[in-house]
Amino acid sequence: MSADHSTWHPAWLPEAAFGPVGSRRVLVAPGPDAGPVGRTVVDELRTATAQHGGTLTVLDPSAELPDGAIVRAHDLVLLVAPRAGRAAPTSGGRVHPSSSTNAPLVALATDGVLDGTSGPEIGTDAFLRIRQDGRSVVVAGGAAGLLYGLHAVVRDGERAFGTDHGPQHDLPVAPVRMLDHWDNVDVHPVMGQVERGYAGGSLFYDAGEVRDDLTRVGAYARLLGSIGVNAVALNNVNVHATEARLLTDGLGDVARLADAFRPHGVRAYLSVSFASPMALGGLATADPLDADVQRWWAQAADRVWAAVPDFGGFLVKADSEGQPGPFAYGRDHADGANLLARAVAPHGGTVFWRAFVYDHQQDWRDRRTDRARAAHDHFTPLDGRFDTNVVLQVKHGPLDFQTREAVSPVLAAMPRTRVAVELQVTQEYTGQQQHVCYLGPSWSEILRFGLAEDGTRTVAQIVSGLPGSPASGPPDADPLPAAGVVAVSNVGDDVFWTGHPLAQANLYAFGRLAWDPDADPVALLDEWVDLTFPGADPRVRSTLHALMDDSWRTYEAYTAPLGVGFMVDPLRGHYGPNVDGYEYSRWGTYHFADRDGIGVDRTRATGTGFTGQYAAPWRDLYEDVATCPDELLLFFHHVPWEHRLHSGTTVVQHVYDSRADAVDVVERLRQHWADAADVFPADWHARVGERLDEQLRSAVEWRDQVRTYVYRKSGVPDAQGRPIY
Amino acid sequence: MSADHSTWHPAWLPEAAFGPVGSRRVLVAPGPDAGPVGRTVVDELRTATAQHGGTLTVLDPSAELPDGAIVRAHDLVLLVAPRAGRAAPTSGGRVHPSSSTNAPLVALATDGVLDGTSGPEIGTDAFLRIRQDGRSVVVAGGAAGLLYGLHAVVRDGERAFGTDHGPQHDLPVAPVRMLDHWDNVDVHPVMGQVERGYAGGSLFYDAGEVRDDLTRVGAYARLLGSIGVNAVALNNVNVHATEARLLTDGLGDVARLADAFRPHGVRAYLSVSFASPMALGGLATADPLDADVQRWWAQAADRVWAAVPDFGGFLVKADSEGQPGPFAYGRDHADGANLLARAVAPHGGTVFWRAFVYDHQQDWRDRRTDRARAAHDHFTPLDGRFDTNVVLQVKHGPLDFQTREAVSPVLAAMPRTRVAVELQVTQEYTGQQQHVCYLGPSWSEILRFGLAEDGTRTVAQIVSGLPGSPASGPPDADPLPAAGVVAVSNVGDDVFWTGHPLAQANLYAFGRLAWDPDADPVALLDEWVDLTFPGADPRVRSTLHALMDDSWRTYEAYTAPLGVGFMVDPLRGHYGPNVDGYEYSRWGTYHFADRDGIGVDRTRATGTGFTGQYAAPWRDLYEDVATCPDELLLFFHHVPWEHRLHSGTTVVQHVYDSRADAVDVVERLRQHWADAADVFPADWHARVGERLDEQLRSAVEWRDQVRTYVYRKSGVPDAQGRPIY
Repeated sequence: MSADHSTWHPAWLPEAAFGPVGSRRVLVAPGPDAGPVGRTVVDELRTATAQHGGTLTVLDPSAELPDGAIVRAHDLVLLVAPRAGRAAPTSGGRVHPSSSTNAPLVALATDGVLDGTSGPEIGTDAFLRIRQDGRSVVVAGGAAGLLYGLHAVVRDGERAFGTDHGPQHDLPVAPVRMLDHWDNVDVHPVMGQVERGYAGGSLFYDAGEVRDDLTRVGAYARLLGSIGVNAVALNNVNVHATEARLLTDGLGDVARLADAFRPHGVRAYLSVSFASPMALGGLATADPLDADVQRWWAQAADRVWAAVPDFGGFLVKADSEGQPGPFAYGRDHADGANLLARAVAPHGGTVFWRAFVYDHQQDWRDRRTDRARAAHDHFTPLDGRFDTNVVLQVKHGPLDFQTREAVSPVLAAMPRTRVAVELQVTQEYTGQQQHVCYLGPSWSEILRFGLAEDGTRTVAQIVSGLPGSPASGPPDADPLPAAGVVAVSNVGDDVFWTGHPLAQANLYAFGRLAWDPDADPVALLDEWVDLTFPGADPRVRSTLHALMDDSWRTYEAYTAPLGVGFMVDPLRGHYGPNVDGYEYSRWGTYHFADRDGIGVDRTRATGTGFTGQYAAPWRDLYEDVATCPDELLLFFHHVPWEHRLHSGTTVVQHVYDSRADAVDVVERLRQHWADAADVFPADWHARVGERLDEQLRSAVEWRDQVRTYVYRKSGVPDAQGRPIY
Repeated sequence: MSADHSTWHPAWLPEAAFGPVGSRRVLVAPGPDAGPVGRTVVDELRTATAQHGGTLTVLDPSAELPDGAIVRAHDLVLLVAPRAGRAAPTSGGRVHPSSSTNAPLVALATDGVLDGTSGPEIGTDAFLRIRQDGRSVVVAGGAAGLLYGLHAVVRDGERAFGTDHGPQHDLPVAPVRMLDHWDNVDVHPVMGQVERGYAGGSLFYDAGEVRDDLTRVGAYARLLGSIGVNAVALNNVNVHATEARLLTDGLGDVARLADAFRPHGVRAYLSVSFASPMALGGLATADPLDADVQRWWAQAADRVWAAVPDFGGFLVKADSEGQPGPFAYGRDHADGANLLARAVAPHGGTVFWRAFVYDHQQDWRDRRTDRARAAHDHFTPLDGRFDTNVVLQVKHGPLDFQTREAVSPVLAAMPRTRVAVELQVTQEYTGQQQHVCYLGPSWSEILRFGLAEDGTRTVAQIVSGLPGSPASGPPDADPLPAAGVVAVSNVGDDVFWTGHPLAQANLYAFGRLAWDPDADPVALLDEWVDLTFPGADPRVRSTLHALMDDSWRTYEAYTAPLGVGFMVDPLRGHYGPNVDGYEYSRWGTYHFADRDGIGVDRTRATGTGFTGQYAAPWRDLYEDVATCPDELLLFFHHVPWEHRLHSGTTVVQHVYDSRADAVDVVERLRQHWADAADVFPADWHARVGERLDEQLRSAVEWRDQVRTYVYRKSGVPDAQGRPIY
């Protein structure tokens, strides 16, 4: 097979993926409020039908309603549902699609099964699907829903035209499905063009400026729109000098970027520096209670929304890792967030305020300070004080995107605050897009993790407005708007977008899980495979499942053991092993291994007390070494090397076994991949092959360093007698 | 006190240091071959006498000889001795200093004690001093000797004008006294403008070009001339693309730099890339046996010497740490070095070929490969094959400028090869000019270390042409020219030249020990103090002795213990502690600590066999753990934590004690310095004070990390019960 792209890979939207739709007779009625997103749907369908031999009928809101026979002559009908409160005008027995409703068309297309009055219930982001009399119908609640509905049909391929079925409501669980770009305008001397970017340069910026040609940004926006992502933050949360000016001098460029995202239903946000009133406005302070500061932000917001009327809002990392914030003025995070929230409120804007705040100048000698406690300690006292257009953005774990962490207790601890959970699609700690690490299973576990005694209050529920969330209302307070799921993007200007081609699946799965956290991550892989390689040899699917299904657990098995985290190399930007790499550092990320044992005592009884930040049952389950899950044992407890796991083996032998076994897995997968060269595009196969070579090299290094380190400390020989150095 | 400088500090040549000379009646007769160095001597004296109220009489070679009374009316007479084989013409009872001799003047000035025929015996670099009838006389063998003689008088200050004494011959032990600058023309993305530079930018280069204004280079050359340094290599031994072109396009700039050094007796050398014929000449190979390559180098040398007739030669790092070399063509280092040597021989040039060659892609799992062995393994088979204008430049230890290493066995193992020893004035591993670390005592130990059974064959003897050196002739071969002492410079464009003001003393001591390896390093400190702070309060001297005399051993005592080396932080360019920082790396620098013990087994019996590279007695003394010196124990042996040292304490307790004690020392010195604020210039005191703060912070970190690391591994408590973490 040869590649079907030139400048960049089509990812999961190759032309062939549109074959089942494009070869059919399609009718689309985007309705009176189609806007740019509706036009995108029409354009997609026009291209697809032209390429695949189908036909397209576009019903303009001002056109007459076609008669029933004509409507029923289509295989696929996509339309926006009527808005509430407007009657459908009729004229001489023929129904005109008015400027306000497609209601009669809904009834026509569904043989009356749907009556066309259900629009408001659908939701503007959502859609109904029905297959009736051999005709597939998508009834969307709005233009975005129409786009998502189209892609749902594309994803289903021929299955979308199978047996009839009744109405199926498909809707995202949360309004916020956002990707944060840690892209720098200027190349940062240490962090490069994209902080924690492993896929080349920025899609947005090059050598200190916003790119002239944003064609590829449009292609990226199209990918995001197809998986339901509806927001992007355009620049790094660490806001350096040039990037800060996006808020002022750079607004023209921001508008150009927003223009590229808009047709795909994606709104633009900016990361801003809390010190902007000083750095950009020349004020002597950035104190959130200072009237001049408040005025400056209000005027800044006015200018932003004047340039980009549908602008989303601001993302802020404040008083964290050296970024400025309200602490300098004796104010707290609520003061800081509300300052910005009030500036953007008149425009309908939202402030995403990160909860990633901790002492990053920690003394490694001090075992009482626990970075894991920090976000909870800082923010829970402020619950109820944040304005309703503030979303507190909480990393999924209490540390920093480790391969395995406990779920952050902050998510469940702020019932009067809108919270979003932050995931990391870019593989900072999970192989940096050199290693295969399909993160769908990890995110699925996180999103479905129930923080309450009865297993409810899952992360997805809390952040998405489902029962148990601030959006459903705590016992003594009004409901708040829902928030959702945010993640750090993994794309760059690499031809495959993501460096490692298989990392495309992480971007795909993020969007799909943010839409539906209950989706089976392995089934999402099937979707992704079918879209990316339409009509391919079945070995494509089986090979990719073999490589990817368990890849996260395999990665975990050769890296830091049992939830202890880190052990990564500071010299190489967190890539590769360095067991003591962060052991004597200021970052608060230690494992405390000595000749007797390893792990961080976070119990209330003898440790940092972090377990007390959880509600039951977790506060007790994690507290007790007998009930703490194996995979988080060293996150919560310092145990002897010969402590016996629930699995029956000892900690030390587990380290030896799992690291050795995992490398064996990688070796087999590398061979598996080599054997499948005939069924993959040559460039794709070559790139993945190179990465697997590096993954094996790196995994061997992880295995040998971790095993040797543990042996040198513990003195316990490997029961299997494998080499230790 | 206030500072007496504006743009840069005068170091050890403040105006006041010339007071004792400048206030006197001085007569100078630089002789017929004075050249630019002779003119420098006259200029120095003219300035000094003008500033301090003395008088200066300059005897031009063409002038008539003054009568004896006039000569004897001077307090200080400096002159160049007659050259051999030329009679002194006389005329009517008055002796004219001819164009070829000052012989009659010598006799006049010394009341006939010296007869003026001793020039050739003095040596062009050397001088005789005599004090006769209250008159101090310097009789130099050449212009350089005159310069060095002047500075010897300046150094002695009023003592130079004390009681009479007979002739004293002062001569350098070796012809080569060289400073290598690891300066980059272009700022290197990792290494900066000066690789391992801790004193700001380069004196020579700025932002990709040779500086327009070389005034300060002249001031630097003056400092070097005053301590006898007579050669500089102008660019980094790691020759990057821009720097390679100094050899071709950059010759105009090289000539300008050479012009700045020439008046002070310092010849310029270039570091060159072995791949130059390809990179610069467009050839397809750099094979040393290829005729086109040989021709290219010969023509390159012709161009260099055409631009700089007194150019010194080339410095080469080949087949080391990624630099190109002869291995690519199946040739060896002798082939490579001789290629260049034959190109420069017609011009009297010399090639300095570094012996720092080792496997820098070592596998940490492999305990058989020993980086310490590498130079000996590579080079000793080539002994006798290097041309006589090749100098093999050997680092003082077998590893890499560690605070404590065994002396390199290579120095004594190549009797048919000219060898120079390479020291490191820049404090890469010795505190990076943040810590006080006076290296004179270390260099003194190295230079005076006897490699033969009877304690002879000292390093100084071997490299300097004294008995036991190639220059004195091995049993079965002709004597070779002597070589000498080379070091990596520690200066930059910092106002104090060296970042840490006290590091000026290292540069000073290097020059003085290269001249006289038997000089007492503490006495050299007195010289340096007297020059730098002429007439200062006695507390200046006592304070500086307190801070500096034992500073190298103090630094050793809180860093890597007992000769094991490294334990430095790769992330911070070798600064600060990271016990396992190089333990699992490719650099071949390990300590192999485990719960049972620590150290590198380099014995013949059970280790890498490195001890076998030494002659007796060292091969046996180092081999036996019972006779190995404590300070090198872990360099040669892997021993249990509770192994008892000759000092009576155990290894583990030694680690605990010496690190804690050394920090106590630093704390006391910091207080000592604070108490001496009134006797130092304010800027000097402030800068040293800042550095002492940092030294204390860093020393505490070293103490705590090394102690804690050792405790976590060994489990042995500190007998003193001090905190471990």
